[in-house]
Amino acid sequence: MDLKTIKDPAIVQACSRQELESLAQHIREFLIQKLSVTGGHLGPNLGVVELTLALHHLYQTPKDKIIWDVGHQAYVHKILTGRAGQFDSLRKYKGLCGFPKRDESEHDVWETGHSSTSLSAAMGMAVARDLKGSKDQIAAVIGDGALTGGMALEALNHIGHEQTNLTIILNDNEMSIAPNVGALHSILGRLRTTGKYQKVKDDIEFLIKKIPAFGGRLASTAERVKDSLKYLLVSGMFFEEMGFTYLGPVDGHDFDDLLSNIKYGRDTNGPVIVHVLTKKGKGYAPAENDAKGTWHGLGPYKIESGEVVKKPGPPAYSAVFSSTLQRLAHKDERIVALTAAMPGGTKLDQFGAEFPERMFDVGIAEQHATTMAGGLATQGMKPVFAVYSTFLQRGYDQLVHDVCRQNLNVFFAIDRAGLVGADGETHQGVFDIAYLRHLPNMKVLMPKDENELQHMIYTALRYDDGPIAVRYPRGNGYGVKMDEELKELEIGKWEILKDGKDATILSFGTMLPVAVEAAKTLSEQNVHVRVVNARSAKPLDADLLKELQEEGQPILTLEEAVLKGSFGSAVLEHFHDTGCHNMVIERMGIPDRYIEHGSVPELYEEIGLTAEEVINKIFTLVPRRRQRA
Amino acid sequence: MDLKTIKDPAIVQACSRQELESLAQHIREFLIQKLSVTGGHLGPNLGVVELTLALHHLYQTPKDKIIWDVGHQAYVHKILTGRAGQFDSLRKYKGLCGFPKRDESEHDVWETGHSSTSLSAAMGMAVARDLKGSKDQIAAVIGDGALTGGMALEALNHIGHEQTNLTIILNDNEMSIAPNVGALHSILGRLRTTGKYQKVKDDIEFLIKKIPAFGGRLASTAERVKDSLKYLLVSGMFFEEMGFTYLGPVDGHDFDDLLSNIKYGRDTNGPVIVHVLTKKGKGYAPAENDAKGTWHGLGPYKIESGEVVKKPGPPAYSAVFSSTLQRLAHKDERIVALTAAMPGGTKLDQFGAEFPERMFDVGIAEQHATTMAGGLATQGMKPVFAVYSTFLQRGYDQLVHDVCRQNLNVFFAIDRAGLVGADGETHQGVFDIAYLRHLPNMKVLMPKDENELQHMIYTALRYDDGPIAVRYPRGNGYGVKMDEELKELEIGKWEILKDGKDATILSFGTMLPVAVEAAKTLSEQNVHVRVVNARSAKPLDADLLKELQEEGQPILTLEEAVLKGSFGSAVLEHFHDTGCHNMVIERMGIPDRYIEHGSVPELYEEIGLTAEEVINKIFTLVPRRRQRA
Repeated sequence: MDLKTIKDPAIVQACSRQELESLAQHIREFLIQKLSVTGGHLGPNLGVVELTLALHHLYQTPKDKIIWDVGHQAYVHKILTGRAGQFDSLRKYKGLCGFPKRDESEHDVWETGHSSTSLSAAMGMAVARDLKGSKDQIAAVIGDGALTGGMALEALNHIGHEQTNLTIILNDNEMSIAPNVGALHSILGRLRTTGKYQKVKDDIEFLIKKIPAFGGRLASTAERVKDSLKYLLVSGMFFEEMGFTYLGPVDGHDFDDLLSNIKYGRDTNGPVIVHVLTKKGKGYAPAENDAKGTWHGLGPYKIESGEVVKKPGPPAYSAVFSSTLQRLAHKDERIVALTAAMPGGTKLDQFGAEFPERMFDVGIAEQHATTMAGGLATQGMKPVFAVYSTFLQRGYDQLVHDVCRQNLNVFFAIDRAGLVGADGETHQGVFDIAYLRHLPNMKVLMPKDENELQHMIYTALRYDDGPIAVRYPRGNGYGVKMDEELKELEIGKWEILKDGKDATILSFGTMLPVAVEAAKTLSEQNVHVRVVNARSAKPLDADLLKELQEEGQPILTLEEAVLKGSFGSAVLEHFHDTGCHNMVIERMGIPDRYIEHGSVPELYEEIGLTAEEVINKIFTLVPRRRQRA
Repeated sequence: MDLKTIKDPAIVQACSRQELESLAQHIREFLIQKLSVTGGHLGPNLGVVELTLALHHLYQTPKDKIIWDVGHQAYVHKILTGRAGQFDSLRKYKGLCGFPKRDESEHDVWETGHSSTSLSAAMGMAVARDLKGSKDQIAAVIGDGALTGGMALEALNHIGHEQTNLTIILNDNEMSIAPNVGALHSILGRLRTTGKYQKVKDDIEFLIKKIPAFGGRLASTAERVKDSLKYLLVSGMFFEEMGFTYLGPVDGHDFDDLLSNIKYGRDTNGPVIVHVLTKKGKGYAPAENDAKGTWHGLGPYKIESGEVVKKPGPPAYSAVFSSTLQRLAHKDERIVALTAAMPGGTKLDQFGAEFPERMFDVGIAEQHATTMAGGLATQGMKPVFAVYSTFLQRGYDQLVHDVCRQNLNVFFAIDRAGLVGADGETHQGVFDIAYLRHLPNMKVLMPKDENELQHMIYTALRYDDGPIAVRYPRGNGYGVKMDEELKELEIGKWEILKDGKDATILSFGTMLPVAVEAAKTLSEQNVHVRVVNARSAKPLDADLLKELQEEGQPILTLEEAVLKGSFGSAVLEHFHDTGCHNMVIERMGIPDRYIEHGSVPELYEEIGLTAEEVINKIFTLVPRRRQRA
């Protein structure tokens, strides 16, 4: 069957059991083949082939609504809703998004990317439906990992209370990206091995019925206990305690089991949890036997051998971070590392392999991690929370209220800062400077390369006057020489890399090669631009800025962050606050809109963060030169 | 006994049961008397008198650590740690803080104000202790309301997993500030009525032991079921499922019950929850019989009559918000209101009384509320999330990722924006402009008075091109005339209130009276200042700014928000981004530090947000005039 012929999921509603099986087979082959070229989230999608088919068999989207938590497992849904033909462009510039996208399809009713949002969104939709008196069915598909996120638990609590009519499909594959942690995970584990809940309940009820027949102390105890027992048995399970009807565990690769339980859940009034057991990577051996999470999301691979195509290159920033931390942890017992379910992405797994007792994976729980780091700091430890820029957004209040307000020595290692590429707008790390810079006591640094990163890590861990953030980009460094000895940088001291008398570029972090290239081209046109590695957005280098003020040259700030409120904005504030109102200062960075997926160079091009645009901008600031050249 | 003689809580450790009773009595009288003059959180503190004494009897602070979630219930702790003598200054400028404060006492090991942070902090401290190999005891006291906050649930999940040795005192008074909502609340309710857990467990174990003695089907069923049953019984309770030893429920006003259970919990290895039932306002009839939450936190009152001293005054901004919403909800069925456990503070209780089915109190769950509002918006509803500025910080990622990114029509009614006064630094609403302004699609407005507020609410609800925030201050309006007819304001259009040729003050929201007063004084000195009600921080009024640019007058921006990244910063960005680099622009607002408690006028004075300072600043910008005058 050519999957490209599927234009509407209605055809899935009409499928026989046998046709569903056959469709599942086709979809698996399609995914394994297509993703071997484009890369993408193979493991999660192979795990939900039957589940997605069962949902589209039972739910009439878009009238009914299916919400995909995190969203990287929505490829099968995309195939069934008329998008199989676009898979060659998956996660590419202007191509198919790797996550649900409302402007791609009316069947995508809610966009995701971050985890644990689906239950709140589903509840909002269900409440709207009820207020409007309509009858649509609403299902949210959430993984066992995403369930540990605080907002999912808030939603569970509220849905259970309101008894909102919706179905939660708990897609339990025993790991989200990394193996899961947490007490909830243990509960699910027990549910898995306990066998069918309904059967147990029946057995127990049979037992209770028999008890009053026996006299003496046993009978009276039984009587007294019966109410409590009933409470424990009938609503004893964790989810039933929360007010949900619990169905499961269901074999997520068996259509009979899936269809009967999801249908029962759909038709049950009030909130239902269908606990579905799936296997990540199902049907493709290399992905099934994946202990390290390699096949969760990856680039191209060779189908036959299961060999992942790797381009050799300089060390990744994350790896430099983790190895430097490891090096320093030998000498400093106070160093403790935290991650929120990203031990692989942050490379803290390498740190954790050597220092298991000083590394904590807290689950998808950035709020908790931020404040736990604060608690550690009060006791003289040196906590390091390694977290993606976009995910630290979850810890914003904890930064404001706990860490910065109490001026605690927490080191935030902010990974994936700046544009991240293929993951697109939900994952771009472009807000962190703006949301960190206005927090009292916070320091915000970014290195020019991986060598400077190791010195910044050393510096951040020696700093003991409050919170400090070092942000670094996704991907590999430049392959620069790594100094053997780590050195402490002066915080708030920038570095002049090239002098020039016509204008100054203040470059923050990753933009430096662009600045250097522009300066080189400009000097060939007799415009001489000073290039500064402005490695600290807070504090600024007040001494250097004073020199610039005295010279009066035009200034261009350059950063991979939203223009509103970030580094360039800090420079403007600084000059006006020091009474200097006549400096020519222009800013380049990310405009006031969300930036979609594509390769980072393509995105630079789209938003004009290129040497060419820097040159154009400089010429507007130094117009006389242009005419002379 | 004179409580002022208590200098060290060690004396509580040595108290006999009778002395504890007597101390409890003294403390109650002290609180009722002192707070009748100063105001403060009476109800919560009367509820924890015995609990706090029991904790200080059993824990040797500061070696051992007690962490108070939310912190408004720490008055008894303050009395027992040598601060009774400072209660006349409670919540006053430079006086005793209403929350734990590390620079007040070494017994305050963690500062709170926002809810649900204590478990994460306690875990951080416990992990530090274990890594250092020391043996301190750590207890966190958390209310049943605070437990619904996502970060507390994240921490429960992680603590249960790690089996960290600490004791959680669950202070269950069946309401936090408003009556609690949520499935968790029902679970606690069942635990309360089930009676002692231990007794039930014993009974059930007796029962199981007897079962195998009976032959036939019963025996085999029993055998088969036993494992499941044991699981259900032994770890069947919600908290035991999460990996905690559960003790309770404990009578929170009975020292025998408290001391034996807390001691048992303290000496038990691994994580323990002691479920303590307390009564808010215990020992003072008006506060005990408080259905509306009046006695949670309040101003002065008359002890004998229980009459709350109320100053008559213009309507509060919150009341104007709620009544306007009510008025509009009659005509627009799409309006749905949400609050995160603040129905009284936001005055949404008034809205909810009329439209119970269109008002949702989600519990302490700002993340969930923000995204649930997004879900409602996707279905064409008009969700309004009324939330304090400081608490919306919890929903920052949901703003970035869910609401603004999908450009959903959610109206954020941001209450308590700006300085809040007595609650101090944990509650100042000074970051919201900075954390909202850099989000694409967001609009940020603030009215000059309560009349303009009602028009802005009308405007925000008519606006249908994405998220919009209207921020307004704590407290009463000015008593201005309220227009009968609501009118739509043009978003991004400012209002010139007074013309002047020497300089322009761009005032955002609450600062307007300061600007007007300064302008009046200045005009007497022949300096003529234009005063603009710059009621939209995003978008700015580009037309008006263009006119100002053409005139070239100096500009002063004025706002009750952090200077970094807020309204004034937007004005700087605007001029430089439009290529205008020679405008004299200075900014007044909140400096880069946390602002402690005090009356709002005292705080204005401290940070220089006064007419006098505005005048001084204007004279630095218009120096020639001064000499002429």
